[in-house]
Amino acid sequence: MSRIDGRAADQLRPVTIERGWSKHAEGSVLVSFGDTRVLCTASVTEGVPRWRRGGGEGWVTSEYAMLPRATNTRGDRESVRGKIGGRTHEISRLIGRSLRAVIDFKALGENTVVLDCDVLQADGGTRTAAITGAFVALADAVAWGQRQKLIRPRAQPLTGAVSAVSVGIIDGVPMLDLAYEEDVRAETDMNVVCTGDGNFVEVQGTAEGKPFARAELDALLDLAVAGCARLDEAQRAALAGG
Amino acid sequence: MSRIDGRAADQLRPVTIERGWSKHAEGSVLVSFGDTRVLCTASVTEGVPRWRRGGGEGWVTSEYAMLPRATNTRGDRESVRGKIGGRTHEISRLIGRSLRAVIDFKALGENTVVLDCDVLQADGGTRTAAITGAFVALADAVAWGQRQKLIRPRAQPLTGAVSAVSVGIIDGVPMLDLAYEEDVRAETDMNVVCTGDGNFVEVQGTAEGKPFARAELDALLDLAVAGCARLDEAQRAALAGG
Amino acid sequence: MSRIDGRAADQLRPVTIERGWSKHAEGSVLVSFGDTRVLCTASVTEGVPRWRRGGGEGWVTSEYAMLPRATNTRGDRESVRGKIGGRTHEISRLIGRSLRAVIDFKALGENTVVLDCDVLQADGGTRTAAITGAFVALADAVAWGQRQKLIRPRAQPLTGAVSAVSVGIIDGVPMLDLAYEEDVRAETDMNVVCTGDGNFVEVQGTAEGKPFARAELDALLDLAVAGCARLDEAQRAALAGG
Amino acid sequence: MSRIDGRAADQLRPVTIERGWSKHAEGSVLVSFGDTRVLCTASVTEGVPRWRRGGGEGWVTSEYAMLPRATNTRGDRESVRGKIGGRTHEISRLIGRSLRAVIDFKALGENTVVLDCDVLQADGGTRTAAITGAFVALADAVAWGQRQKLIRPRAQPLTGAVSAVSVGIIDGVPMLDLAYEEDVRAETDMNVVCTGDGNFVEVQGTAEGKPFARAELDALLDLAVAGCARLDEAQRAALAGG
Amino acid sequence: MSRIDGRAADQLRPVTIERGWSKHAEGSVLVSFGDTRVLCTASVTEGVPRWRRGGGEGWVTSEYAMLPRATNTRGDRESVRGKIGGRTHEISRLIGRSLRAVIDFKALGENTVVLDCDVLQADGGTRTAAITGAFVALADAVAWGQRQKLIRPRAQPLTGAVSAVSVGIIDGVPMLDLAYEEDVRAETDMNVVCTGDGNFVEVQGTAEGKPFARAELDALLDLAVAGCARLDEAQRAALAGG
Amino acid sequence: MSRIDGRAADQLRPVTIERGWSKHAEGSVLVSFGDTRVLCTASVTEGVPRWRRGGGEGWVTSEYAMLPRATNTRGDRESVRGKIGGRTHEISRLIGRSLRAVIDFKALGENTVVLDCDVLQADGGTRTAAITGAFVALADAVAWGQRQKLIRPRAQPLTGAVSAVSVGIIDGVPMLDLAYEEDVRAETDMNVVCTGDGNFVEVQGTAEGKPFARAELDALLDLAVAGCARLDEAQRAALAGG
Repeated sequence: MSRIDGRAADQLRPVTIERGWSKHAEGSVLVSFGDTRVLCTASVTEGVPRWRRGGGEGWVTSEYAMLPRATNTRGDRESVRGKIGGRTHEISRLIGRSLRAVIDFKALGENTVVLDCDVLQADGGTRTAAITGAFVALADAVAWGQRQKLIRPRAQPLTGAVSAVSVGIIDGVPMLDLAYEEDVRAETDMNVVCTGDGNFVEVQGTAEGKPFARAELDALLDLAVAGCARLDEAQRAALAGG
Repeated sequence: MSRIDGRAADQLRPVTIERGWSKHAEGSVLVSFGDTRVLCTASVTEGVPRWRRGGGEGWVTSEYAMLPRATNTRGDRESVRGKIGGRTHEISRLIGRSLRAVIDFKALGENTVVLDCDVLQADGGTRTAAITGAFVALADAVAWGQRQKLIRPRAQPLTGAVSAVSVGIIDGVPMLDLAYEEDVRAETDMNVVCTGDGNFVEVQGTAEGKPFARAELDALLDLAVAGCARLDEAQRAALAGG
Repeated sequence: MSRIDGRAADQLRPVTIERGWSKHAEGSVLVSFGDTRVLCTASVTEGVPRWRRGGGEGWVTSEYAMLPRATNTRGDRESVRGKIGGRTHEISRLIGRSLRAVIDFKALGENTVVLDCDVLQADGGTRTAAITGAFVALADAVAWGQRQKLIRPRAQPLTGAVSAVSVGIIDGVPMLDLAYEEDVRAETDMNVVCTGDGNFVEVQGTAEGKPFARAELDALLDLAVAGCARLDEAQRAALAGG
Repeated sequence: MSRIDGRAADQLRPVTIERGWSKHAEGSVLVSFGDTRVLCTASVTEGVPRWRRGGGEGWVTSEYAMLPRATNTRGDRESVRGKIGGRTHEISRLIGRSLRAVIDFKALGENTVVLDCDVLQADGGTRTAAITGAFVALADAVAWGQRQKLIRPRAQPLTGAVSAVSVGIIDGVPMLDLAYEEDVRAETDMNVVCTGDGNFVEVQGTAEGKPFARAELDALLDLAVAGCARLDEAQRAALAGG
Repeated sequence: MSRIDGRAADQLRPVTIERGWSKHAEGSVLVSFGDTRVLCTASVTEGVPRWRRGGGEGWVTSEYAMLPRATNTRGDRESVRGKIGGRTHEISRLIGRSLRAVIDFKALGENTVVLDCDVLQADGGTRTAAITGAFVALADAVAWGQRQKLIRPRAQPLTGAVSAVSVGIIDGVPMLDLAYEEDVRAETDMNVVCTGDGNFVEVQGTAEGKPFARAELDALLDLAVAGCARLDEAQRAALAGG
Repeated sequence: MSRIDGRAADQLRPVTIERGWSKHAEGSVLVSFGDTRVLCTASVTEGVPRWRRGGGEGWVTSEYAMLPRATNTRGDRESVRGKIGGRTHEISRLIGRSLRAVIDFKALGENTVVLDCDVLQADGGTRTAAITGAFVALADAVAWGQRQKLIRPRAQPLTGAVSAVSVGIIDGVPMLDLAYEEDVRAETDMNVVCTGDGNFVEVQGTAEGKPFARAELDALLDLAVAGCARLDEAQRAALAGG
């Protein structure tokens, strides 16, 4: 049973994590999972939103978007339509929650980091690539904040690493890191966000076709945990390469 | 280890499903999970959205909202703010996907059913109550459509039942059907949507505090599957009572 | 000349006023005029809008809305359309003005009460039911504010009671409290808001068909004043029953 | 008891009705009630909105707005704020209803007339001046439509005339056609729309301060009917002068 | 080669500048370039926008809009559509920049002047008429501010005068101050904003049909500079006439 | 007089034009002018907007936007703010007009090309880089349309080439292709769009500081024409390299 691109069922697409892509941002990463390319920039500002002030804790949030022609047919700009769609909202919230899961807000101090994840080219797995890349941009931004003395030098705002991958069942076979064409055909589609030590931050599984059984769920989780472990390595390698 | 309201960890709150609540809608249910009360109405119209026309298949969608004072402090109306928030979008989409998982669109014919789920009072679990109530409203709407000959009399648009429940880990203990105060304290929070025969339609788990391990995930899934089985009985009882 | 439901021309539909409907709001009333059902909640907050600060005077305002399937055919949500329609604006403003007519803002102190009137089921007279129910919710909210010491215990923020009813001319006959089918057929349609002592707070008459003469206007006002007197009794009974 | 500008209590401000103000519109009137100046243009188009097609009946609607500095202090543009306020909606709807009361839609044929009423300078009574001026613009537009053969030459789309005036009680004295400063001080404020033969199209009375008694309402109606009779004369004179 | 209205190629349409058109605004001008009529009002307020506070410098900005029936066919209101179009934005920004070019912000002090330019009737050249009229309204507003002691009496906030005119090439002939019908036919269309001493504030030339050569550009600039000189005279005459 | 980056006054920054950047779009170019990087994608669809149908002519339009962290400090997303700013509108319109100047709409046939220009990193001259890159993407899209037989094979929809550059006066010296820091300091700022044969499509000059004289305008135009000639060469080289 071979896949469109010849991969094995439990194989990731080629992953690249290019740091320092932008000259302006405090952290910036161009991440690719195969043909999916997402530009993740981290912007650090002193202070936190009004509702969070005064407690000495920082904040991390994210905004996800797609360029209109990131996809096979052009989509309308959300700015032109004057409102953000449900899918965009959902993914922005997912990325923010995932990153906050590995942040010690006290250690971050009253600083805010905004992760912008803009999909330049989409081929499935844009949200998982975004989380994986945004973590690296966040790590660079935190390091910048420490060099700038915004964050205390010995503080450890990052309590771990976080990465994400999609898994799905196609023609009855659980597969890792679905490309767009595979995603469309999947009966069950799941996005899993793991910490570097293999625990779960988020598990989102959806029956696209028929409902799935516990055994299928278990097989998908196994695949995803293994995939995240390899993404964690790629993140470490990228951060070591700086 | 007892809960705020004295329940056991694996016990649902009292569930009521009141059919025929509205005189106008083709299906209408006032569902309550403890103090959470959601009005679910099903509106049937002939025809489908433009992008779905001509294939002989129907459509089912949902819109979720909260009254401004459904909660402990008043929230702004989304109509007044002029835009729908991310949480609302996310839940509306979840309800729609969950119901579509048990629909045979060919059997439904080119008809559309819109499920409006309006939270009149919120005390945790509004999305799971909404899914559970909306399924009953949908069943009534389908029956109405068959009486009206919009849907072929022998068609079986419903391929099964669907219900949903929240589970979470509080002070290390997995618990079923969280009330609002419990939800706030939960380290991990999961919403699970099951079919009547115990398979999964949707699994959404989030680490609110620290990441969770596979064993915790397994315990939560066990609780949720058992909870959905009891909700399935409550739905059957309500539908039998018509 | 009998009416659809057998009422006399000068007879109200059955009126119910159920207090304490919601566990969260400072005042909450489910009011029904026949099949019209409106949930009115009063939310009290310390402080007033910026433009009113510093004068020691409170504020009372209202927002009216309809659930999408409150009516015979489903209406689009105003939150989804991204803007509030003219009719909604108009009724929200009417309810707010009506309640402010019986408020002593000095006695209320710098507190704000927001009355949310959400129509759960519509069958004509939704705005008049909303005003009638909102007054009772407001009275409960003021009493709550006094128990909480937000409002001075001996202050009398309510200078009177207020209720409202619709009247109209159908086939030449003036009638009280129109149900939806009657409203559609009315040549002239009037909403009248009265104080408990029988004076006018608001008179809004519209020729739907042909313009109306002074004598017709007089007959409608007589009917409405008598109708409001009976609604005033119903409000007193409800408030006494607390 | 003399008024700010020396008028008697039952006296209108100077009224001017200047037809043909714009070279583009099918009907255009610059109407002034004292310092209140409103530009009313009537735009005729063949066809009617979708919901009204096929019945052979026309449509008349209106949009009211104020220039930002029509008032004493500058107001934000509704286009800049991105939404229309409740007051604007309410007045646009009132003008539309008032004009439709004197239209025979069958005689108008499937044509639409839009009346734009833009307040260039405001000094109280902008909605009543708008209705009074818009009627004249509408009459010119109908005549244009007949000359262009859009409307059958012998049809009589106008079943009468319509004009409007404000009345109010100031220091206990009923007064006609309030200027802005009077309007602010009025305890009761009423807008009355009459046909040329003295019947009512719309009566909107509001207690701004204390509730008003039936005798006060009667006195205000008497004043308003007499005021509208004089406005009717001014409209006739303007139309005769064409 | 004569023009539609018999003018010479280098001749302006009749220009009128009527000051004091509104009783409310600190400066107000009804300007006409032929049949184009724009109402320009200047509103002065103490203080500046937040981003400009504390530097002792004032601010001048502008908003341009068209009444819906200013044009030959009715346009939708931007307030109704809920957003401002690109053309409106572009012209508002142009007017603001043009006026700021002749303002000494230090001399103005921390005061803001908003110029509202509302096109009552359009026949080409609305933006140039708006700039020309707005300058006169601004001069009146500055004089008002000095009489009110908002602006220091000896300060000279105006460093010069500013006016604007359109030029274009029609059938190969460069022409001044295009009316709408000419504008539609122009191959090249240019708006030029000059100071009273003949320097450039803004030059915006666009090839509507075929690209234009340097010699054509030069001829257009010559025409425009001469036209602005005559507009400068008209402005001086109007301001002298106060 | 040397510049920040050591360039001569009449020297462009390094220009790169990378074709085929995206696998989905019919034409796609990553263009850079120094550190300014813009992704230009061309999307071809059969058919034209409603207002243009039936004449056998095509349409070309453009949308410009900036990623939130393309700039030195993060800007809010226009999709989140719910409206498009004036600057964005203005530049989108400029790009569209510039490209339409070299299109033969008859030869294009009833097809639409949308050029999306998204600024990934900004350092001055984003609109001129966008025009220069978008032309190359448009050329690739036209070639694609001809290979697909959407456009007649012998048709020549492109009547020429178009490129753009900024010029400005800094400390009295006219300079070509301003970087952001230079742009901020410029007294006069001009964007010039030229065809490949050196004629003008658009000339937009603005006095940021003091008004500019004719001689300065002439010097700037000379610089710009020379700069566009070099950009035209870069475009040719890129298109030849395909």
